Amino acid sequence: MLSELKKEVYEQNMRLPELDLVNFTWGNVSQIDREKGLFVIKPSGVDYEELTPEDMVVCDLDGNVVEGTMNPSSDTPTHAYLYRHFKDVGGIVHTHSPWAVSFSQAGKSVAALGTTHADTFYGDVPVARALSEAEITEAYEANTGKVIVETFEKAGLDPMAVPAVLVRQHGPFTWGESASKAVYNAKVLEVSAEMAYHTLQLNPDQERVPQYLLDKHYYRKHGENAYYGQNNPKSKSH
Amino acid sequence: MLSELKKEVYEQNMRLPELDLVNFTWGNVSQIDREKGLFVIKPSGVDYEELTPEDMVVCDLDGNVVEGTMNPSSDTPTHAYLYRHFKDVGGIVHTHSPWAVSFSQAGKSVAALGTTHADTFYGDVPVARALSEAEITEAYEANTGKVIVETFEKAGLDPMAVPAVLVRQHGPFTWGESASKAVYNAKVLEVSAEMAYHTLQLNPDQERVPQYLLDKHYYRKHGENAYYGQNNPKSKSH
Amino acid sequence: MLSELKKEVYEQNMRLPELDLVNFTWGNVSQIDREKGLFVIKPSGVDYEELTPEDMVVCDLDGNVVEGTMNPSSDTPTHAYLYRHFKDVGGIVHTHSPWAVSFSQAGKSVAALGTTHADTFYGDVPVARALSEAEITEAYEANTGKVIVETFEKAGLDPMAVPAVLVRQHGPFTWGESASKAVYNAKVLEVSAEMAYHTLQLNPDQERVPQYLLDKHYYRKHGENAYYGQNNPKSKSH
Amino acid sequence: MLSELKKEVYEQNMRLPELDLVNFTWGNVSQIDREKGLFVIKPSGVDYEELTPEDMVVCDLDGNVVEGTMNPSSDTPTHAYLYRHFKDVGGIVHTHSPWAVSFSQAGKSVAALGTTHADTFYGDVPVARALSEAEITEAYEANTGKVIVETFEKAGLDPMAVPAVLVRQHGPFTWGESASKAVYNAKVLEVSAEMAYHTLQLNPDQERVPQYLLDKHYYRKHGENAYYGQNNPKSKSH
Repeated sequence: MLSELKKEVYEQNMRLPELDLVNFTWGNVSQIDREKGLFVIKPSGVDYEELTPEDMVVCDLDGNVVEGTMNPSSDTPTHAYLYRHFKDVGGIVHTHSPWAVSFSQAGKSVAALGTTHADTFYGDVPVARALSEAEITEAYEANTGKVIVETFEKAGLDPMAVPAVLVRQHGPFTWGESASKAVYNAKVLEVSAEMAYHTLQLNPDQERVPQYLLDKHYYRKHGENAYYGQNNPKSKSH
Repeated sequence: MLSELKKEVYEQNMRLPELDLVNFTWGNVSQIDREKGLFVIKPSGVDYEELTPEDMVVCDLDGNVVEGTMNPSSDTPTHAYLYRHFKDVGGIVHTHSPWAVSFSQAGKSVAALGTTHADTFYGDVPVARALSEAEITEAYEANTGKVIVETFEKAGLDPMAVPAVLVRQHGPFTWGESASKAVYNAKVLEVSAEMAYHTLQLNPDQERVPQYLLDKHYYRKHGENAYYGQNNPKSKSH
Repeated sequence: MLSELKKEVYEQNMRLPELDLVNFTWGNVSQIDREKGLFVIKPSGVDYEELTPEDMVVCDLDGNVVEGTMNPSSDTPTHAYLYRHFKDVGGIVHTHSPWAVSFSQAGKSVAALGTTHADTFYGDVPVARALSEAEITEAYEANTGKVIVETFEKAGLDPMAVPAVLVRQHGPFTWGESASKAVYNAKVLEVSAEMAYHTLQLNPDQERVPQYLLDKHYYRKHGENAYYGQNNPKSKSH
Repeated sequence: MLSELKKEVYEQNMRLPELDLVNFTWGNVSQIDREKGLFVIKPSGVDYEELTPEDMVVCDLDGNVVEGTMNPSSDTPTHAYLYRHFKDVGGIVHTHSPWAVSFSQAGKSVAALGTTHADTFYGDVPVARALSEAEITEAYEANTGKVIVETFEKAGLDPMAVPAVLVRQHGPFTWGESASKAVYNAKVLEVSAEMAYHTLQLNPDQERVPQYLLDKHYYRKHGENAYYGQNNPKSKSH
């Protein structure tokens, strides 16, 4: 069942240690088949060197296991919540990558301070509010999804334009059209956070990039006027 | 004698450089056989690339060599002291990993600022008081064990719930049910210290995680209601 | 056409990930054939592991593609502008290396604080002014070249003596007699920026090196009295 | 001539990139044959991957080349000066390792803040005064040796007890009984500087370790009461 998707999710999970985004088992990647309403996710707490494509677990949109002999990631209810509410998301990643975690712990968003950030994130990567005691005690992982969605709705943010969030005192979730894109975004967030940290140490009053630079870099890579790379609408005519 | 244990201790020692926790010979791992009252430890000052399982030294609980042609780690009396007083400890690790050492040198505990920390340490990792001149001049290594135990007793800490300490102006010791778990805890401490450092630079007034988040993450992985991973009591029913 | 030059440009591009200067596709190297008035540059957005020498794109000095089936780097108009105005430049590099980007984002030049810097850069590496909204909206990449040249002209800097610049809120460009030298300079800039950052954290009032130390180190390696290395004018008689 | 020594010096030079102490050609190691009054040093500006044992250059104590087809390191007069004045030194290393350089550029000694430092350096690693314009313009490299020796003499330091120095606005020199020991000391200095930097950021008023801790750690590894490792006087009886 979904053997191609399992293989893809397995491979995207294996990129996390290659990209220096995880220690031990501290990360998970999923990807959804929207037509079937099922997503595939890494099992919980299994060493990356022992993982196989067959270990991947198939879940429905309520986070119930549909196929698989192993327990899915303990973050599965967060993934399910995000797939239910962010309809264009095709893949989701969670890591404890150190720079993004440091901003999560400090309760600070990763500000859009340069083009490295702006090429991928159309504005600051927000930090969600802390969960209440009740939200943590019961249905913690699903409530983590809830505060992420709440963060985007309250700020009027498009999750496909800013495909990442920092969960307070925890760490980053990123997403994208596919698991592959979500992994890419996880690395961009980590690198952008590292650069933002050093920028703010050098110049604590550093302002964000202006809207027109944000527009230029984001739309150079995204949308119908994109001209970066080999496959964008205007790249051949550039 | 204890050849399986020697092999295990050898392998756990070899993980220290793999996990970027040591330079040169600056680390040691031991594991105890509680029934026999003997522990096995790395020899002193031997390069990791020259170590063999047969080089491991067998010691009794007073730190005396029972078997082995090489000198045991100079920190052997610290290990022995901890095994005598922390009855559930099965393995001990000492390193000079740079982030944990920096907190040790600064005299600051590693505060519980996020879930990466809270998944393993049920609260701050404490820093022990400095040893007195008399404690350093005579029986220095055993006294190092003494101040560690004193730190936990004075603060009413369970060493199995917070399986790590920072020795003032020196560096970290970690422990666990086994050498393997102690090595794992040494890496978690190093990563948590790195994140705590950057968090505090971003936000010097950052508060610790609330008790209910500490409870949630710790008990998600430990005890009878644990549901993280494949082998915990509730993980199958999750 | 220009097959030797394509091979060289390919190899210099491949050095960027080897020297830890790029993530993903975030960098590009070009080299010019001044007699033919053509330069060769990396294609846009192609993974380093998929690049081949044949993928390299040949452009004229207006940045038009003369040969090649792929789109050239989106930064091609910047390279073209620099080749038109800096007549002795033979190769150009752009990266998003994290330390240099941090200074770019903070709007601070990389000050000449020691000999590591002074061996390559005869004074501070300047940061260019931010582009205006009009300069960003139209002909952004060519205007990036324009503000770089403006920076050097206004400050009376010789681009061959200080072969690097920080583009505001973006990142570094470096150059040299050849692509190989430009790649070398990109690494020196990154290392110098890392050292400058830590130096300024340790000592915020640290002054620059004196002019005579700048002269000594720069002219030890450059010009007719150079005596560093095996091929400099005076190295044999030293 | 001195073929064994050339092989040893070659191998110790090759350890510098392995230990992450150099970029490009920015480092050099020498070792002396005190009976013959000759030392062997790396040639100037040759890539590490191209070096061979035969490339090593033989010099006398005035820094003149006695054998070898290549130019010796441009720092050769510094090595010669140190060998002439520090009579027990058997090997010397110079690098531009980033943490040690940052302290050199900031004009701050690396304070003895913990046992990692104290195991090797019996007190702070001092920073030498800046050279005057005259000292830089003429005989710069020999004068670098002169200010190093002056630093130790004025402070009454034993160069074998504190086998390292920071040259102002430049970088570290380390030494020892042999090239191998000097390379080891170069790595310890780099690690100690990294830890000192983070310690001082966490706690700017952090005091040095007390004299008795300095004594304990230094004499645990050095001198007739040493008991660390396998070959020290008291290590067998420990």
